[in-house]
Amino acid sequence: MNAMTQDNLRSAFAGESQAHMRYRIWADKADKDGFPTVARLFRATSDAEQIHATFHFNALRDIVGSFLVASGGGFGLGSTSQNLQGAIDGEMHEVTQMYPAYIAVAQLQGEKEAENAMKYAVAAEKVHAELYTKAKEYVDQGKDLDAKVVKLCPVCGYITITGEEDKCPLCGASIDKFIEY
Amino acid sequence: MNAMTQDNLRSAFAGESQAHMRYRIWADKADKDGFPTVARLFRATSDAEQIHATFHFNALRDIVGSFLVASGGGFGLGSTSQNLQGAIDGEMHEVTQMYPAYIAVAQLQGEKEAENAMKYAVAAEKVHAELYTKAKEYVDQGKDLDAKVVKLCPVCGYITITGEEDKCPLCGASIDKFIEY
Ligand SMILES: [Fe+2]
Ligand SMILES: [Fe+2]
Ligand SMILES: [Fe+2]
Ligand SMILES: [Fe+2]
Ligand SMILES: [Fe+2]
Ligand SMILES: [Fe+2]
Repeated sequence: MNAMTQDNLRSAFAGESQAHMRYRIWADKADKDGFPTVARLFRATSDAEQIHATFHFNALRDIVGSFLVASGGGFGLGSTSQNLQGAIDGEMHEVTQMYPAYIAVAQLQGEKEAENAMKYAVAAEKVHAELYTKAKEYVDQGKDLDAKVVKLCPVCGYITITGEEDKCPLCGASIDKFIEY
Repeated sequence: MNAMTQDNLRSAFAGESQAHMRYRIWADKADKDGFPTVARLFRATSDAEQIHATFHFNALRDIVGSFLVASGGGFGLGSTSQNLQGAIDGEMHEVTQMYPAYIAVAQLQGEKEAENAMKYAVAAEKVHAELYTKAKEYVDQGKDLDAKVVKLCPVCGYITITGEEDKCPLCGASIDKFIEY
């Protein structure tokens, strides 16, 4: 695999791993702040980031060893409104900056598995950003997120809060396979 | 908080978050390779790294924003024996290099919470390295790890495979609080 695509996949793995962890911590804070549905959204999204991290790690399966990895990460443990803003900022960075740049390099280098892994991820991040934006609107009015369900596509990391889909609009997985939070 | 201690805590958070993720992936591989007790050890250790990551994230609670983070990470998805070697190498890097350096800086800078978070972590990493070394000895003979239990201290990330302790030798938590895998 080309060196730049390797670097980008390692950076994306590190970024997804940190997002997974950060969302678990922010989920606990949302529960403490009295927003249990926001907590469910954080936990579902945490597991979505695990799916993406696993894609990237698998694409790198044959490149064994220790590496110094540079990755972007959001920090701070504030109110749930502040934490949601941090989550929106992180997802939007991935949607508008990180993944488009990494996908362009993978295309340039003909790295098909890396390109596919990152295209799956960025499509889901866009949905994550939208759902966190909606959650913040509720929380800023002192209310918990209004969601019929919180369900995760275990294939690609798509999340629904209506449950109205028959199948995942991103990857086609059946709604019966979705995980409920 | 002093800038160098901040950088070190962010790096340690990123490293622990990646270890947490990597061990989950390697746990699934251990199950596939027919080593279910090694898989339990990987999962318990994955959750131990979540405890450490959460310490570091909490110590950084007031420093809000996005940062570029440099951290060390192991990659590669090979046989369970190879993955265990990767885990040993990562834990030993933390025990002999990363945490001693970061703790020395925290002491120099009088950063008590950071120092404590990293001292808790490094004590547990030493145990993780020992248990992974034992697991690899079994796997290299074609056998699964022989463990009476696989139990995690939910306070500090210590792991026992005998269950003979009354309390955690690192933090004093009662064995009744330990989580079984
Ligand atoms: Fe993601
Ligand atoms: Fe996301
Ligand atoms: Fe999907
Ligand atoms: Fe750790
Ligand atoms: Fe460890
Ligand atoms: Fe402990």
